[in-house]
Amino acid sequence: MEELVGLREGSSGKPVTLQELWGPCPRIRGRIRRCLEWLKEKLFRVDEDWYFLAILGVLMALISYAMNFAIGRVVRAHMWLYGEIGDSHLLRYLSWTVYPVALLSFSSGFSQSITPFSGGSGLPELKTILSGVILENYLDIKNFGAKVAGLSCTLATGSTVFLGKVGPFVHLSVMIAAYLGRVRTRTIGESENKSKQHEMLVAAAAVGVATVFAAPFSGVLFSIEVMSSHFTVWNYWRGFFAATCGAFTFRLLAVFNSEQETITSIYKTSFPVDVPFDLPEIFFFVVLGAICGVLSCAYLFCQRTFLGFVTTNRFTAKLLATSKPVYAALVALILASITYPPGVGHFMASRLSMEQLLDSLFDNNSWAWMTQNSSLPWTAEPDPQNLWLEWYHPRLTIFGTLVFFLVMKFWMLILATTIPVPAGYFLPVFVYGAAIGRLLGEALSLAFPEGIVAGGVINPIMPGGYALAGAAAFSGAVTHTISTALLAFELTGQILHALPVLMAVLMANAISQNCQPSFYNGTIMMKKLPYLPWIRGRKIGSYPTTVGHFMNCAITTLAKDTPLEQVVKVVTSTDEAQYPLVEST
Amino acid sequence: MEELVGLREGSSGKPVTLQELWGPCPRIRGRIRRCLEWLKEKLFRVDEDWYFLAILGVLMALISYAMNFAIGRVVRAHMWLYGEIGDSHLLRYLSWTVYPVALLSFSSGFSQSITPFSGGSGLPELKTILSGVILENYLDIKNFGAKVAGLSCTLATGSTVFLGKVGPFVHLSVMIAAYLGRVRTRTIGESENKSKQHEMLVAAAAVGVATVFAAPFSGVLFSIEVMSSHFTVWNYWRGFFAATCGAFTFRLLAVFNSEQETITSIYKTSFPVDVPFDLPEIFFFVVLGAICGVLSCAYLFCQRTFLGFVTTNRFTAKLLATSKPVYAALVALILASITYPPGVGHFMASRLSMEQLLDSLFDNNSWAWMTQNSSLPWTAEPDPQNLWLEWYHPRLTIFGTLVFFLVMKFWMLILATTIPVPAGYFLPVFVYGAAIGRLLGEALSLAFPEGIVAGGVINPIMPGGYALAGAAAFSGAVTHTISTALLAFELTGQILHALPVLMAVLMANAISQNCQPSFYNGTIMMKKLPYLPWIRGRKIGSYPTTVGHFMNCAITTLAKDTPLEQVVKVVTSTDEAQYPLVEST
Repeated sequence: MEELVGLREGSSGKPVTLQELWGPCPRIRGRIRRCLEWLKEKLFRVDEDWYFLAILGVLMALISYAMNFAIGRVVRAHMWLYGEIGDSHLLRYLSWTVYPVALLSFSSGFSQSITPFSGGSGLPELKTILSGVILENYLDIKNFGAKVAGLSCTLATGSTVFLGKVGPFVHLSVMIAAYLGRVRTRTIGESENKSKQHEMLVAAAAVGVATVFAAPFSGVLFSIEVMSSHFTVWNYWRGFFAATCGAFTFRLLAVFNSEQETITSIYKTSFPVDVPFDLPEIFFFVVLGAICGVLSCAYLFCQRTFLGFVTTNRFTAKLLATSKPVYAALVALILASITYPPGVGHFMASRLSMEQLLDSLFDNNSWAWMTQNSSLPWTAEPDPQNLWLEWYHPRLTIFGTLVFFLVMKFWMLILATTIPVPAGYFLPVFVYGAAIGRLLGEALSLAFPEGIVAGGVINPIMPGGYALAGAAAFSGAVTHTISTALLAFELTGQILHALPVLMAVLMANAISQNCQPSFYNGTIMMKKLPYLPWIRGRKIGSYPTTVGHFMNCAITTLAKDTPLEQVVKVVTSTDEAQYPLVEST
Repeated sequence: MEELVGLREGSSGKPVTLQELWGPCPRIRGRIRRCLEWLKEKLFRVDEDWYFLAILGVLMALISYAMNFAIGRVVRAHMWLYGEIGDSHLLRYLSWTVYPVALLSFSSGFSQSITPFSGGSGLPELKTILSGVILENYLDIKNFGAKVAGLSCTLATGSTVFLGKVGPFVHLSVMIAAYLGRVRTRTIGESENKSKQHEMLVAAAAVGVATVFAAPFSGVLFSIEVMSSHFTVWNYWRGFFAATCGAFTFRLLAVFNSEQETITSIYKTSFPVDVPFDLPEIFFFVVLGAICGVLSCAYLFCQRTFLGFVTTNRFTAKLLATSKPVYAALVALILASITYPPGVGHFMASRLSMEQLLDSLFDNNSWAWMTQNSSLPWTAEPDPQNLWLEWYHPRLTIFGTLVFFLVMKFWMLILATTIPVPAGYFLPVFVYGAAIGRLLGEALSLAFPEGIVAGGVINPIMPGGYALAGAAAFSGAVTHTISTALLAFELTGQILHALPVLMAVLMANAISQNCQPSFYNGTIMMKKLPYLPWIRGRKIGSYPTTVGHFMNCAITTLAKDTPLEQVVKVVTSTDEAQYPLVEST
């Protein structure tokens, strides 16, 4: 039916529909409509993209929370099985090891069969992309499912395999941002804008970090430090806005699910406000920074060397090329066997999840003092109120277990980084650093039982503060970032140790940046991805970089006259996607 | 005396002094010497400049602390005089007002007589310099003394005139960095390096903020946000290192001077860790952000308009051009008369210094509840344990005093910014925002006496959290920065309100950035300094910027045929440094 139109009295002649003319209060309605249109135009200008950032944040938070929820269920099922299976050592051992072996080999097989891009953390590749190189299909949305499924399985192995979530989450977030960006360009019909895409990817990276740790500040800063070489301040609010949306939704879901009463930090600490540390302790914090710096250099060097060994050694290279799930299962079996709680795992608190490890390491009290004159029983299950008891062993004392933990995890971490599954390598390093700090803190609290400043009031040394500084310093040194200090504060909700932690992080960074490339740069070098060489000084001549650094020297070629069976052999035994065809080999 | 030389057995032929040859353990000594030389070379490479940054940080911290110390003494003397002078109202009034009038007119006269560059905060000019414009002599070290002396006098007026320290301190820090840089270039003999100078200035700005608030993180971020348009990540550690050195030394001096037991935050709060706020309160935090955003727009608009009025109005313009100290004294008299404690000052807590104001506003408890059923006496002097009692007035209640404070300080702040003395405008705005937040917080705590979430546990609303959010949001909106949120946490030592405060700051920024230029950009526009127009969208056509925006339209010219008395009149009645000579006017 056609609408009837009429003219309003005294109007300039534009006809309006009769319905509108005769409705109640036509003027006010018109004014409200214009007001809404103005608001709509103001809020949804094509230039602005805040709603896009908000969608990204909320979406990533939902995914992160759902993943955590599912993983929590799987881990609980594993623990239940392990607890209920009876006293037979064989059965208990099997129930402990089969889970991670199955999960990890599935994760590796599933994700790698869909796309080879889903392995690893993804941060090195993203760094390469943000420096201007085009890695085709790396941000394709079809990798998304493989990465999510693979990552969930990896994380469900818990502290046995000891892998994290940050890196892949940043990759997932950037994937979604790239996808949403394409959808948006197609819907609105505007042409693609390189600089805008770049801005979006940086903001998306911040969302990735923020939705894992619920830490918007350090999310933004960490993603800038790790991935960018320069930064425009006008893009600053984007990162913060998206990260805030993500972190808020992530914590909101925890409240809705009755896990928490309100929105708070993840690993709350309660250090005393008045004297969190004595002044001379600053010296030990700096020493801790130096120790973390040296250890991070050792870690980075060994990790790179071992990764090189695994990819060049004939046996492992063939295994990695042809049957990744088998390699993953083998490594998982080794790691799970070592962490078997009635066995060696007893000496390294292996029944705690990574979150519980951090929670216990940030504990206020001095374990050395609490265990000195008492012998504590080993409970059948970890006591949620006294998680730190897991670190206690009657014969080794807590120093023994901490040292054993550090020694074993050193090579176990390195071994775990070689598994071709979607996994993050930040949280393990963070926990490792916390253990280093805890060890020093416990030693100091034993050496200075009444605090360092003699006289008057006794302020006992808190090893938890050292654990905080150690975590920030070691993870900062491994990734060559400073914002890990801020992350430590955002995770714990207190910022009392601001100066000592920052000094430890700077010290650790000074050592590791002078001696080793960062974890991500090292991986870029090992993967032969193009990268911008790190600027050490201002003199151009000081760069010994040659083309060989960026080119793959060890390539597999096929000659024109290669017989078929040899071609099949070459193609099945290597991992390459392309083979140069040459006249003769 | 020439040294005797000899050859070591089996050496390659390089002669060594006999003394060295025959000293004990020549090999070990030689090895130690080489080791030290290697260390020296490693640490003091010409490229690296960490020692330079450390010197800068320590120097600025010493200046900042010495200044605080001296100012504290002057303020205490003023308070002693005011307390001891007897009950005569005239004498008390004179003792209250003469101090700030004398200090401010001396500050204005002294600093302006040495150099006109010493007035104001200096941040707008630094922003101009960092965007590539050369303002000659602005960073000259000879301005240093004028700025330090002037700033000390300004700050010694206390909360009467209500001015801060941050801006001038950033200017001082950048001056010293530029001076040290020149000394260094001359000593080493290397050529000047523009990009290196730029990096140093950005790091120096971070030091300036960090040595005022002892907040290294927000020092770095705030200085980047306020002054830069882009930023290289490789320069990041410089800012952090210098800011850490500065903040550490600054707090260390406080410990050495027995003001504190150890290094802690400046305005420590002790909000309960478990439930710092109920979930629905997030909504009110965002509303607070919106209120702060709207108020900041009003403040920015009025400030700019009034500054324009003062510089164009015939009477004030002449006063400012010819007798700045008189103008400063007049304004100081007005402000001091209003804050006279037995008069109007009683209703606006004027006996508290700015630090005490912040301390009291961040208080945990709800004043509305504490004052509801009791009538508290007005003590002769503020009680250091219960500073908040200053906000209580039997007739007005605390709501009345807070509203009165906000209304009066609004125009008093704007009036104070027109005084031509070295002064910062950040801290006043921060305190003002805290009062806005406190007002909303108190109203909420009265409206929801048992907390917002009904049922089970009662979590009373803490107005201190709102004060924190208000301070961050209002100061963030006025300066167009987000890092004020981080500053609020670093100042208080707790980071429990991370998400609500960040959301309030983002909301306030969204409003103010869309409606008004920032305080610093506004000043740049009023001072007709060249500036980069703020990028609102990505379309180049959307900038209505013309040359007229950057050029001074109202200039005073001298014609060739002007008679002498008229020339003298023109030259003495205006503030210009140069006059164009034209054929005829």
